[in-house]
Amino acid sequence: MPHITLNSDEPGIRGLFRFRPETAHPVNELAEVLLRGPSTLTPGERELIAAYVSALNDCRYCCSSHSAFAAAQLPGGMALVEEVRAGPEDAPIPAKLKALLKLASAVQQGGTKVTQPDVTAARAAGATDLEIHDCILIAAAFCMVNRYVDGLATVAPEDPALYAMQAQWIVSNGYLASLA
Amino acid sequence: MPHITLNSDEPGIRGLFRFRPETAHPVNELAEVLLRGPSTLTPGERELIAAYVSALNDCRYCCSSHSAFAAAQLPGGMALVEEVRAGPEDAPIPAKLKALLKLASAVQQGGTKVTQPDVTAARAAGATDLEIHDCILIAAAFCMVNRYVDGLATVAPEDPALYAMQAQWIVSNGYLASLA
Repeated sequence: MPHITLNSDEPGIRGLFRFRPETAHPVNELAEVLLRGPSTLTPGERELIAAYVSALNDCRYCCSSHSAFAAAQLPGGMALVEEVRAGPEDAPIPAKLKALLKLASAVQQGGTKVTQPDVTAARAAGATDLEIHDCILIAAAFCMVNRYVDGLATVAPEDPALYAMQAQWIVSNGYLASLA
Repeated sequence: MPHITLNSDEPGIRGLFRFRPETAHPVNELAEVLLRGPSTLTPGERELIAAYVSALNDCRYCCSSHSAFAAAQLPGGMALVEEVRAGPEDAPIPAKLKALLKLASAVQQGGTKVTQPDVTAARAAGATDLEIHDCILIAAAFCMVNRYVDGLATVAPEDPALYAMQAQWIVSNGYLASLA
């Protein structure tokens, strides 16, 4: 049960967006730019970073949601997402994405855990400065969102079909449309 | 030295805003709503939560900035901010603010660290559901911002006068104007 009285039965962050539309707008705008805006990383790759960080933070609602959003936009689907969550090093993904996920994992532990050698390795694997920037901000943003969702003890549905349905909706309409 | 090549010499998050204006906008809009928008918590109290979480995350740039922003808007000034950073329990602040800072400290460790008894204590000290919500989102947002600033190894000036000057500017103009 959520720690505060919400004004809807919507689960996870959706109930918080309904409760506080003033903060919902910038949070969704940030998600839209970072996860779906113009980028040399695909939306699927960026959702994978979000899902991976949410898994590291043990946030069930966000991990289920962004795993579904990643699976809907990656050729490897949910099987690939689960392999990445189990350990990016052994997953069948490009070296650049592995290096970016390593940066994301460092950010999850704390900003100063990101080392120059890890950044250099990402660059050697082909990551641009903008990709490194966006990866670090995606990881940081999910350290916010995961804490927001769990800090207020919102409800996370069990049924994977609900997250898959939400994924189709987000892929078609985007994050900002979800506020309408 | 920052991990990526920025397009200005601006320190801390300001250099990142200049580098990536598309993400700077929602981050600043979130700061404006949470720290300066309509609220039953004063801007000084909200900046104090931001400074406290930034101190817990050891983020020198954010802690110096938001300590200065809090000091500029609290009757107790920087002496009070430093007392709070040293330990809210012993600082001369109202019980409600102490209880909110305890929630913020839990959020800094992780969303699931926020306990129902701590929320109940905040409510007993007079905190509303909206104040509890905003406190938790402020704390979560600084877990993002601190990781963003340090994850990219941005530069934090030493001189307190620079942060005090920036505080006057933010108090007069707000977060969104800083993007102009």
